[in-house]
Amino acid sequence: MKVAVVGSRGKVGQQIVAGVEDADDLELVAQVDADDSLDALTAAGTQVIVDFTHPDAVMETLKFCIDAGIHCVVGTTGFTEQRLDQVREWLGDDPQVGVLVAPNFAIGAVLMMHFSKIAAPYYETAEVIELHHPTKADAPSGTAARTAAQIAQARAEAGLGPMPDATSTGLDGARGADVDGVRVHAVRMRGMVAHQEVIFGTQGEVLTLRHDSMDRTSFVPGVLLGVRNIAEHPGLNVGIESFMDL
Amino acid sequence: MKVAVVGSRGKVGQQIVAGVEDADDLELVAQVDADDSLDALTAAGTQVIVDFTHPDAVMETLKFCIDAGIHCVVGTTGFTEQRLDQVREWLGDDPQVGVLVAPNFAIGAVLMMHFSKIAAPYYETAEVIELHHPTKADAPSGTAARTAAQIAQARAEAGLGPMPDATSTGLDGARGADVDGVRVHAVRMRGMVAHQEVIFGTQGEVLTLRHDSMDRTSFVPGVLLGVRNIAEHPGLNVGIESFMDL
Amino acid sequence: MKVAVVGSRGKVGQQIVAGVEDADDLELVAQVDADDSLDALTAAGTQVIVDFTHPDAVMETLKFCIDAGIHCVVGTTGFTEQRLDQVREWLGDDPQVGVLVAPNFAIGAVLMMHFSKIAAPYYETAEVIELHHPTKADAPSGTAARTAAQIAQARAEAGLGPMPDATSTGLDGARGADVDGVRVHAVRMRGMVAHQEVIFGTQGEVLTLRHDSMDRTSFVPGVLLGVRNIAEHPGLNVGIESFMDL
Amino acid sequence: MKVAVVGSRGKVGQQIVAGVEDADDLELVAQVDADDSLDALTAAGTQVIVDFTHPDAVMETLKFCIDAGIHCVVGTTGFTEQRLDQVREWLGDDPQVGVLVAPNFAIGAVLMMHFSKIAAPYYETAEVIELHHPTKADAPSGTAARTAAQIAQARAEAGLGPMPDATSTGLDGARGADVDGVRVHAVRMRGMVAHQEVIFGTQGEVLTLRHDSMDRTSFVPGVLLGVRNIAEHPGLNVGIESFMDL
Repeated sequence: MKVAVVGSRGKVGQQIVAGVEDADDLELVAQVDADDSLDALTAAGTQVIVDFTHPDAVMETLKFCIDAGIHCVVGTTGFTEQRLDQVREWLGDDPQVGVLVAPNFAIGAVLMMHFSKIAAPYYETAEVIELHHPTKADAPSGTAARTAAQIAQARAEAGLGPMPDATSTGLDGARGADVDGVRVHAVRMRGMVAHQEVIFGTQGEVLTLRHDSMDRTSFVPGVLLGVRNIAEHPGLNVGIESFMDL
Repeated sequence: MKVAVVGSRGKVGQQIVAGVEDADDLELVAQVDADDSLDALTAAGTQVIVDFTHPDAVMETLKFCIDAGIHCVVGTTGFTEQRLDQVREWLGDDPQVGVLVAPNFAIGAVLMMHFSKIAAPYYETAEVIELHHPTKADAPSGTAARTAAQIAQARAEAGLGPMPDATSTGLDGARGADVDGVRVHAVRMRGMVAHQEVIFGTQGEVLTLRHDSMDRTSFVPGVLLGVRNIAEHPGLNVGIESFMDL
Repeated sequence: MKVAVVGSRGKVGQQIVAGVEDADDLELVAQVDADDSLDALTAAGTQVIVDFTHPDAVMETLKFCIDAGIHCVVGTTGFTEQRLDQVREWLGDDPQVGVLVAPNFAIGAVLMMHFSKIAAPYYETAEVIELHHPTKADAPSGTAARTAAQIAQARAEAGLGPMPDATSTGLDGARGADVDGVRVHAVRMRGMVAHQEVIFGTQGEVLTLRHDSMDRTSFVPGVLLGVRNIAEHPGLNVGIESFMDL
Repeated sequence: MKVAVVGSRGKVGQQIVAGVEDADDLELVAQVDADDSLDALTAAGTQVIVDFTHPDAVMETLKFCIDAGIHCVVGTTGFTEQRLDQVREWLGDDPQVGVLVAPNFAIGAVLMMHFSKIAAPYYETAEVIELHHPTKADAPSGTAARTAAQIAQARAEAGLGPMPDATSTGLDGARGADVDGVRVHAVRMRGMVAHQEVIFGTQGEVLTLRHDSMDRTSFVPGVLLGVRNIAEHPGLNVGIESFMDL
């Protein structure tokens, strides 16, 4: 499999370059970054690109690759429903090219969300705590908000009503943000990278799912999983869940 | 559903009595303890018993109930393969009676084990830590040993080899007990009840599943789940997993 | 030491009665609850009372005991600065009676707060997460708010400025409540009792202090510590810290 | 302050070089590694060295620096009592040079050990869990063994007897290693760096102290603390505790 990395000089990009080079079944054929021409991708015979760049640049790259028949594994953020629809339109009704857009390539984060959906119907209460470095701009994280929304949906499908909460006095913000009725708390802490806890409670017992991304290399196994499987999944795929045996 | 509690004066038994009484769809028709005759069960028209007693007493109760057509939900310990075979023999080839023998009725413990099996193939390393009150006689707990064995099996089925471990010097016991190649650590701590962590690690990330049984009432929701579903599961059932949507 | 328990039929009161009865060096001489006359205290020769009652009742009891020369160990809530001043006035300029008013008798909670003050100057960031049962009325807990305020004070005394926090977009409440610049998050979870984490972070490392009150008996050791030492601390004492070797 | 780094090309050494260069009040005057002459230290007018090298090399460097009047901050391992005595002998009865030998420069690890000694007398039980990457050679870690020994000593001084432990059946190693009566458990997990939990328990409550070293840069703040204070502490100093306000 001939792989090219777009955004190859970024922090994440460098790790992906190293990960592809370390994998015996993958061949790194091109590295592209801002100011480089995308023609390098076709010239090198690229079969799959990995794109961790910027919202401003990614759509042009996707259009180019889809037209050129190159599969895409994308970790760049900023994919609104509108953008996803645009990608679907480019792919067409009978897609030959596979595009994977994933908000989180950490396999543990995907498992944490999957497990949260399974556990939610059995518990009276559930909350999410995410902890990140203090240079993060958004609070809560996209992963935490998505986890909470999925828990809310699983509860609704199981016929569970609102969670008990007798809070009558307190300070603004103490109970966190409300995502579809599930409380989400965001901690910003120097020394931390990207961490999340999902806590479930019922009479006499508590179940906690915790995921710790210790460094940026935590993305690599999930990206390689995407690269190895994208050709068999033509069309638009959102999240690496569909490539896992869940 | 007419329910009787065997071992009704024990600590767990009292909680189950309270739980059955609180449930609108269940009727508590008999309470039996040591020195009471089992005839009280048939006299009361019992449809399901819940048995949390002693290994010395439980087999006689099971024989009595199976002969009387009474379903059994059993939390008593000490069920060896030999004992399970005996129960199967009593139930016969075309069982009308359902028997549920479960080593752990805490729903969270069951979920923790289920999730452990799903996660195991994606991680290079996995270990189990269980923490209990210091009056516990066995170390590690049965739940911890069973979790470790299931992780080992899931790893083997996924083709994973032994975990990396460069330990070359140290103190006896530091690396815990070895259950099929998975390390298990047992902490004994005043103030704790029954707690377990399963930790999985791969490049750059860690996934932790933690279950906390805060008090004995944590058994109640799982027992009620068993009582409500046992009639639809004739024959021997081991573990409440089969009654959950996993 | 002759001890009386006021509020002896409450949940906490019953545990204190049991704790005093179990202690070889203490004698339980009276139990008083609502509707009982306080005269029972003097009639029994009480040397120390333990009061876990209601804000509406406690002041009258304190006045009575101070006048009668009976030491007081008080866990009842609602002590404003105004109330503490009133107690000081009753005790007088040369107090013979000792009164201990403590917001939290769990020794671990006291240690957690003490350690937080020591650690705060060495860390760039600090936040507090408290987790309680969903029937709690206030959020955050008084202990969490007090911990945060003490961390803020220790940071100020060490010359530390505001914590870094790049949050620019997000949901209301995600970053918790602001107590003197320290963020506090309150989780409400069925199955939990009273738990708190204080997290400190600096370059490359995180220090976490966690206290778990598993059940109401966690108050007992601290109450007994107060009872045994109050006679040697005439005047008003706030918090059991002063009775510990910190 | 003129600082030289010995072992400057090692993983830790590189971080220290970066840390010294980033500090406004410190000047990096020399970098020495294996095969380089120690004369570079004196030639550069070095006032303090930082040595993170190998047990085979460190003693020669210390002898050289003590003779040359250069203060030493040492993170190299392998310091037995015999080696410490040798350093004391070299320093002489009226030392002008300061030598700091520290087994752990992570400030959080030092605080965790300090807090453990304070908490130990108030708790019936205590255990230590350390978690490291699977390429670590020793189990348990030196920090964990030292923490356990200090807890054991604090318990003994407070008159506490052996901890309760009813374990009568189990698997070898399940209860961890025994360090002076305190149980220590070592987990080896891919994705982890260096982590430790100290757990204390008494009736109804648990206190947990956890330290997470997320990456090698966690050593830097402690090393700089040593460099800045060593000149005021002539003679042999073991551990950075003496340089902290504890």
